[in-house]
Order: sequence, then structure tokens, then C-alpha cells
Amino acid sequence: MECDDYGLTRTLERENLNLNPLQRGGVLPAEAREALYEFSDGYSICDYCEGRLDQIKKPDINRFLDDLADFINIDLVRTVHGAREGKFAVMHALCNKGDTIIVDGNAHYTTHLAAERNHLKIIETPNNGHPTFEIKPETYKQTLEDAIDKTEIKLAVLTHVDGDYGNLTNAKAIASTCKKLGVPLLLNCAYSMGRMPIDAKDIGADFIVGSGHKSMAASGPIGVLGMTSEWEDTVLKRSERHEKKEIEMLGCTSRGAPIATLMASFPHVKERVQRWDEEVKKTRHFVKEMEKLGEIIQLGVKPKEHDLVRFETPIFDNIARSHPRRGFFLYEELKRRRIVGIKRGQTRWFKCSVYSMTMEQIEYIINTFKDIIKKYQP
Amino acid sequence: MECDDYGLTRTLERENLNLNPLQRGGVLPAEAREALYEFSDGYSICDYCEGRLDQIKKPDINRFLDDLADFINIDLVRTVHGAREGKFAVMHALCNKGDTIIVDGNAHYTTHLAAERNHLKIIETPNNGHPTFEIKPETYKQTLEDAIDKTEIKLAVLTHVDGDYGNLTNAKAIASTCKKLGVPLLLNCAYSMGRMPIDAKDIGADFIVGSGHKSMAASGPIGVLGMTSEWEDTVLKRSERHEKKEIEMLGCTSRGAPIATLMASFPHVKERVQRWDEEVKKTRHFVKEMEKLGEIIQLGVKPKEHDLVRFETPIFDNIARSHPRRGFFLYEELKRRRIVGIKRGQTRWFKCSVYSMTMEQIEYIINTFKDIIKKYQP
Ligand SMILES: Cc1ncc(COP(=O)(O)O)c(C=O)c1O
Ligand SMILES: Cc1ncc(COP(=O)(O)O)c(C=O)c1O
Repeated sequence: MECDDYGLTRTLERENLNLNPLQRGGVLPAEAREALYEFSDGYSICDYCEGRLDQIKKPDINRFLDDLADFINIDLVRTVHGAREGKFAVMHALCNKGDTIIVDGNAHYTTHLAAERNHLKIIETPNNGHPTFEIKPETYKQTLEDAIDKTEIKLAVLTHVDGDYGNLTNAKAIASTCKKLGVPLLLNCAYSMGRMPIDAKDIGADFIVGSGHKSMAASGPIGVLGMTSEWEDTVLKRSERHEKKEIEMLGCTSRGAPIATLMASFPHVKERVQRWDEEVKKTRHFVKEMEKLGEIIQLGVKPKEHDLVRFETPIFDNIARSHPRRGFFLYEELKRRRIVGIKRGQTRWFKCSVYSMTMEQIEYIINTFKDIIKKYQP
Repeated sequence: MECDDYGLTRTLERENLNLNPLQRGGVLPAEAREALYEFSDGYSICDYCEGRLDQIKKPDINRFLDDLADFINIDLVRTVHGAREGKFAVMHALCNKGDTIIVDGNAHYTTHLAAERNHLKIIETPNNGHPTFEIKPETYKQTLEDAIDKTEIKLAVLTHVDGDYGNLTNAKAIASTCKKLGVPLLLNCAYSMGRMPIDAKDIGADFIVGSGHKSMAASGPIGVLGMTSEWEDTVLKRSERHEKKEIEMLGCTSRGAPIATLMASFPHVKERVQRWDEEVKKTRHFVKEMEKLGEIIQLGVKPKEHDLVRFETPIFDNIARSHPRRGFFLYEELKRRRIVGIKRGQTRWFKCSVYSMTMEQIEYIINTFKDIIKKYQP
């Protein structure tokens, strides 16, 4: 059986401080681990199903989805396999091959792939470049107006918080533009829903997607797709032949343990978004202290409004040039001190997050960077 | 917080014998429960990702997928979210809106939904009706030939073992017809892959899908999509903008714990398919003894070649007529004796499976049915 050893042990999160922004919001609380255990077997969530996953009463998926809709203040929600599958479903339901959509210049690659899989053309609202890389509402407006002059725009997509710079966009202003111009807006909250409070109605979004494994303390793959009731008939259209089943959902989506973890984590998630201000404060402190080390510059909007931080780090790049391990030195120095999550080989810049860490842990991380710099000071 | 109690405890499988065919093949062995624990956190499978889930080396998803391709003897495989998502992806990659495909009359509703979501027309090969409901290769051939006379058929779908009668189709004969007529064949092995040996090359299928949570002892949602290399460029086409990413997979599919359980269960699954003959023997014994009770008739092909059994049960329907609990009596009598998995209220017919049960457990189940009948004998 030794050839079947695929290395299925994971000590990374248990034994280290993990700075990977992708993983900071997906750590399970104890109650979600229990739910995972309870619903580990295939189709176990379907014990009491009467034909629709979203209507199951035991466990109470039905009520949970209502609560989730309240939580983000939107008319109705479904779970999907992730943010990307949610985006794909909306585009698929609203657009035809060859249609054009508008997206922001900081969109995640999965937005592009969802569009490409639907054979859609993309018009992009550029960000304002180095160093803040901001998506300005006025640029979005201008781009959308220009686009509409040329062709019909079937959908607008906006990344609420992007994965490159952790910039929080002014979704409300952009939603208002979209509404005026008659274009439905899909807000990608993969990096925000479950971390910070979201009010879809207040923002004015037609659709909203979230990522359970990324920002809602859930085991993957699972995502959230919310919409206003005006879109229900389009996106949740039922099958003619199997009248209970929603076509775009292929009948059922999250038929497994991930939905149990999303439900079990929900009280924890609701509580933590209330403490979002503290998280932002910690992030700002972290940035300030890191920048003090010299030749470390935070990119993106300042001060930070999200925990994802991108640093330009000429200081580490300079060390790498003469280091026998080259670009690997930083990863290795950090790893030795039980800090992980920065990509191997990267020294010119990196992304990181101290989301949900204690102040002690954050100080330890800052001091570690300081020590590494000191060690290589000429 | 009491309003957040969604009832996330599941004792059904621990405390009862579960006859639900949907769930018999999805029970996790201990090693898969461990893997679930290790990879419970969101995106934990992505620790060492360099841009493609299927190429991750730690855990060794890359080698696992090769081993999985060998296991079903096909050129290459990807994991998807389930059998339905695999069928949708193949149809989406091969067909255009309005195209026509052929499916068998025992196809699962998810085959219909995958086609409907792709806006495809369906031509159906009928089964031969009561009591065996067989899909005959000659009927499939005739239907396909007639269809081709009228329109172009872009894809043929065949259910290897269907979920209504548990009939095993003659996939090899039908594949040979499809090959002769130049129509690619997608074989839906949701109920067979992971239970019985599958040799896609020997059968001659172009595509094959499996269901991890249904028949491969995995936690859901996860499925397997296999294909011959001739289809790689069509189905696994890469994005123009994000050149590593496969469009139809939206970049990555199983970014979560389910893939870890599929990998951990693989040795167990490989071993158990070798014992498939024993399972069939147990099923035949179960059917024989149940039919002896009188007015219990196995539908579908005889003798059974799969563990899913559908019984017509006039005996229980007669009892229900005069029972104060009506159709619920059977469910309740069984439940009292710790047997579950037969739908509440059903007495005219039911589906069940004794897959992976011991002979003692099977005898207990047979005796329980016998006792219930005796209790209500006039
Ligand atoms: C902004 C953004 N959108 C979408 C995604 C993809 O999320 P999911 O895995 O739920 O599809 C990510 C993941 O990194 C992201 O950062
Ligand atoms: C024959 C058949 N195909 C497909 C499916 C769906 O499988 P999945 O949940 O993996 O999409 C089922 C599930 O019951 C089935 O019986």
C-alpha cells in the first residue's frame, strides 16, 4: 500500500503562523469540525431530503438560508460550490454567447474564466495604477457609459475587495451608476462576506457571491449566491421535466459536508464580522510597523480597509541578490521561525494577512521580519 | 444563539442499518475521516499549489489522478463536483445551444438537467418496460440510427447502472454502435465506479463520469471526469488570458476536503471493487429471501447484477390500507427495529441496498421484514 501514500497529512496550520491571505478566513472553529465529522459520509446531508437541497429541514438548511439572506440583506440565497461557480451561474442565466459584460480591472481570474466559459466579451474598467491601484467609481461610470454607447452590456461585475491589493471598492457608488444605466450588478464578495458586514440592499447590488472556504470559516468547496427577488425567475428557473429542480443549480449543489460546516460556523462568522474594525486596526498596526523596517512599502489604498496586504519589499530583493539561496532565503528564514504563507522564492513583493491573529502573534511576526533584516544588514 | 441550532447532529448511520442505496457506497473508511480532519480548513489543499489543482504534489493529487485514470483505464481524469457537473462540462464543451443528444430512458434526472442547462434537445432510447425496464443495445442502436437520419447527434449518454432499477447496461455493445456511427459516448458511472471494476478502454467510452460521494467512499461533493486523450483539447481547453487554467474547470474544481477523502479512500475502493462478486452474491441472496416472503417482487433485470434493488411490494401496500398509520407504518416499524433508508410513507414499492453489509446484518433485515409481515397477517 505504500504507493498509495499521497501525503495526506497537514501540519502547516497546526505548527506555524500562516500569513497566506487565501487561508486566513477559512480556518474552522471547533463546532464546524464537529459538523464535518457528523456529515462526513457521502450524501449524508440528504437523509431527509424531499427533492430540494435548499428545502431540507433536518439539518435545517432551509432556515439557515433564510438567516444567511438576512445576514447579507438580500432577498434569497443558494449555496453553490464557490464564488466562481456563483459568477458562472449568473452569467450563464443572464447572457448569451457573444454578449458583453463589464468588469473591474482588479477582478479575480475566476471572473475572467466564468466569462470565458460562457463565451462572453469583457470590457474592463482600469485601476488607477501604481501605487494604489484603485477602481474609481468615476472611471467605472465612464467605462460603462462608453461601453453602452457601443454595445449592449448584459451584466456588470465588481470585485468588492480584490485579491491583489485588498482594496475595498465603493460598491454603493458603482451600484448606483449601474442602476441608472440599467445594467444589473454582480458584486463579488469572496474576500469580504464573512469577514466584514455586508448589506446588499444598502449597496444596491442585484447579485452577490461569497466564498465559504475563503472567508466564511467553512470547509471547501462552497460558496454563496444571493440575489434580489426580481432575478429569481431567471437564475433559479425550474426544470420543465423535473419541476422541483432548479436548472442552473443542476438540481442540487452542496450535497456534502461543506454546507454543514458553513452552517456550524455561522454563529462564529456573524460574531466576527462585528469585530471587523478591530481586524482593520490590527492590520494597520502591522503595516505601520512593517513599513518602519525600511524599504517595505504597502501598495493599494492607504490606510488599509481590509486585512489583505501587498508589500513591495526592495529590502528583501536586495538581500536575495547576494544570498546563496537567492529568492528562497526569505521563505526559509521565516519557515525556520514557524511563519509560513509567503510564496517560496518571492522577495520583490508579497501578499500577507494577519486576520484573526492575536496582537502577540502579530508582534512576533513583525519582530521576525526585523530579525531577518538585522541578520543581513551589511 | 439558540436560534442558530440547525440540528447538525447525525446519528442515522451510527445507530441504524441504512438501506438507502444512495448512501451505501459513500460511507467513509477511517483513513478518509482522518484526511477530512487534516484538510478541513478552507483552501488547505492549496498549501503547495502552483496554479493548478490537478498538478499539486503535496498532497500528491497529481499522482493520484494518474492512478485513478489507471484504475478505470482511461487516458486522463479530473475531479469535478459530482457526476452531474462532469456531464454538464462534457456537454458544454462539445455542444452548442439547440444541439441534440441521445440518452437512455433510465437516465438520472441530472442527465436531463445538465442537458437542459445547456439548452440541448434530448432524444431518448426507451427501456423495454415492466418488469425488467431494460435498455437493450438494439433499441439504443435503432434510436440512434433514426435520430441521425433526422439531425446531427452531438453526444450519446448512457447510464452504466441506473438509479431506478439498478440495471447494468451493456455499455460495450452500445459504445461499439456509437463508434460505428461516429457519435462520442459519455458513460455515467455514478452507481458503478468505485463499486465494480470499470475498464473504459475495453468498453470503448470516450468520456466517463463517477460520483465520489455516491460510490467511492468520499465526502461530497466530488466526482470524477475521465476522457480519452483525443478529447483533451476540447474539454480541457486552457484560458487565453490565464494560460495555466482550464476553462471548463473554472481554473480549479475540488478545492477542499472532499478530494482528500477521495484520495484517502482510494486503496479501500480499489480493494473493494475486487470483491464486487461477493456483493452481487449477497444482493441475490437478499432478493431471493425477500421474494420468498410473498407479494414482494424484484423489478429490473434478473438475476441482479448490482446492489440497488427495486421491489414492488403489494404485501405492504395491503397492510397500509387498513393500518391507522397508513403508509407510514412500514417506515415506523423498520425504524423501531433500527432499520432506515426506505422513504417515509412508501409501501407500494421501494428501493434498497445491502451493499457492504455483513451476512448477519442482511439476515437481520430479512427477518425484520418477515416479523413485520407476520405481525399483520390476518
Ligand atoms: C476576489 C476573489 N474572487 C473569487 C475567488 C475565488 O473564490 P472561490 O474559490 O470560492 O471560487 C477568489 C479566490 O481567491 C478571490 O480572491
Ligand atoms: C445514475 C446517477 N447518475 C448521477 C447521479 C448524481 O450524482 P452526483 O451527485 O455525483 O451528481 C446519481 C445520483 O443519484 C445517479 O444515481
